[in-house]
Amino acid sequence: MEKSLQKEKAERFRALHSRGRILILPNAWDVPSARVFEDSGFPAVATSSAGMMVSLGYPDGESIPRDLYLSAVRRISNSLSIPLSVDAVSGFGETPVEIESTIRGIIESGGIGINIEDYLTRSDSLRSLDTAVERIKLIKKFGEKFDVPLVINGRTDALRHAPGSDEERLKEAILRAKAFRDAGADCVYPMGLTDATSIETFVKELDYPTNVMVRRGLPPIRELERLGVARVSFGPSASYAAMGLLKRVSREIIEEGTYNSLVEGAITFDELNKLASPHNI
Amino acid sequence: MEKSLQKEKAERFRALHSRGRILILPNAWDVPSARVFEDSGFPAVATSSAGMMVSLGYPDGESIPRDLYLSAVRRISNSLSIPLSVDAVSGFGETPVEIESTIRGIIESGGIGINIEDYLTRSDSLRSLDTAVERIKLIKKFGEKFDVPLVINGRTDALRHAPGSDEERLKEAILRAKAFRDAGADCVYPMGLTDATSIETFVKELDYPTNVMVRRGLPPIRELERLGVARVSFGPSASYAAMGLLKRVSREIIEEGTYNSLVEGAITFDELNKLASPHNI
Repeated sequence: MEKSLQKEKAERFRALHSRGRILILPNAWDVPSARVFEDSGFPAVATSSAGMMVSLGYPDGESIPRDLYLSAVRRISNSLSIPLSVDAVSGFGETPVEIESTIRGIIESGGIGINIEDYLTRSDSLRSLDTAVERIKLIKKFGEKFDVPLVINGRTDALRHAPGSDEERLKEAILRAKAFRDAGADCVYPMGLTDATSIETFVKELDYPTNVMVRRGLPPIRELERLGVARVSFGPSASYAAMGLLKRVSREIIEEGTYNSLVEGAITFDELNKLASPHNI
Repeated sequence: MEKSLQKEKAERFRALHSRGRILILPNAWDVPSARVFEDSGFPAVATSSAGMMVSLGYPDGESIPRDLYLSAVRRISNSLSIPLSVDAVSGFGETPVEIESTIRGIIESGGIGINIEDYLTRSDSLRSLDTAVERIKLIKKFGEKFDVPLVINGRTDALRHAPGSDEERLKEAILRAKAFRDAGADCVYPMGLTDATSIETFVKELDYPTNVMVRRGLPPIRELERLGVARVSFGPSASYAAMGLLKRVSREIIEEGTYNSLVEGAITFDELNKLASPHNI
């Protein structure tokens, strides 16, 4: 991607986080899922790491080879005209040199936003706050080095993985998100924040752009907007939905011998094929 | 894959084409779509070339680099314990040497069945019957050379692309399918055969395992069985259905601000993640 276009996309994406209007950010797992989202009118798309990794045969986490992951990011980015934010999981590496490789790879693959989380799948535990904060600073630095003003979404998994009661975990999530904010993240993302009361507490405490994820029980968009949420992302839920549909399709054809769930509401061959055509940018 | 296992899978797949009981063959576009089908109880899975190619950012046809296509075939094959049949489109090449590379690549990627069609996307026309027949003979020969008794599904697009009236095109499809049968195909596949009357005519004329594809208007499984159809495949319809779902999801969240179509009937994170775990074979 032309560097000037990539920088413009990063700034365009950053501006979508301004207060007042919520950003609805769908997460895709491949080219056509991303293109359906663009064609539906969303102003930006993000990758779902779980969706993409499982699609490529790897579980969520960092067991997928980085280059295989990035090649899929690049295919998605090449197919879109709107900004693409990329999930860097927990950084794909431990040293600053490895973080630099990850960020350079994402930028070379067309990404303009980064999700970085403080949870490590392989140890099933949270990073120390210092380490997590250091990563956000490094990502900001490498974005500047490679001349793309990356939009950094700092995710904490404290609500799921910190010790203590629900209240203590919420406190830890707020503490970590404030540290991410102060380290230069453009948006903070407390994974698992779902109910209106906790969202309200969190957003008031942070007073900073906050990302929540769609899941059963999340208040509707209008309510999220009232609560001051800046951005709501799909996470892997588009993959959950698509695979749920394939389970229903399978059950219907095996048990009933019919194809209603396979053909009702489906797109056509020409529509599918167009999702792979080069996009006018 | 162990050669002995691969040979056994080919024979297991071949045996599924015996008269009496229809084979329902779902076509997948990536690892989790294939795994949902295996876990749902189908005895075999096939690739959807359109589904896979579009998923990787290429339109249906042969514009995708062969190695990129085969790497996706291999990921799917590695994730399954049941047989995988692979769509070789029109052969990915013109010379016997190129066909040999395609077949070797598919076998090395774990495929035990081949779909080969007589339609060339890039010229939007049918191959000559002689050329099409020659390809089936070559595929059979290369399967023997690489020691896997490939199950060959000979597809003709005469119903869509031959000249003349509906009746003349059906005659041409029958003529071609008979030639494919006599050249060593294990199953014949008249693309576009949908109505019961034409299916009945075709199956009676051929007296040979016949594949039809799911589409709106196809008779239900029980009726296909009565008509003597040996195999019914999904084609790219799982991709059509999944992308249709994402369009509804998008419209609902943009217009209504709600997430019902995204969360109703969806699988969970753990279920998704398991679709990428190594399968016990």
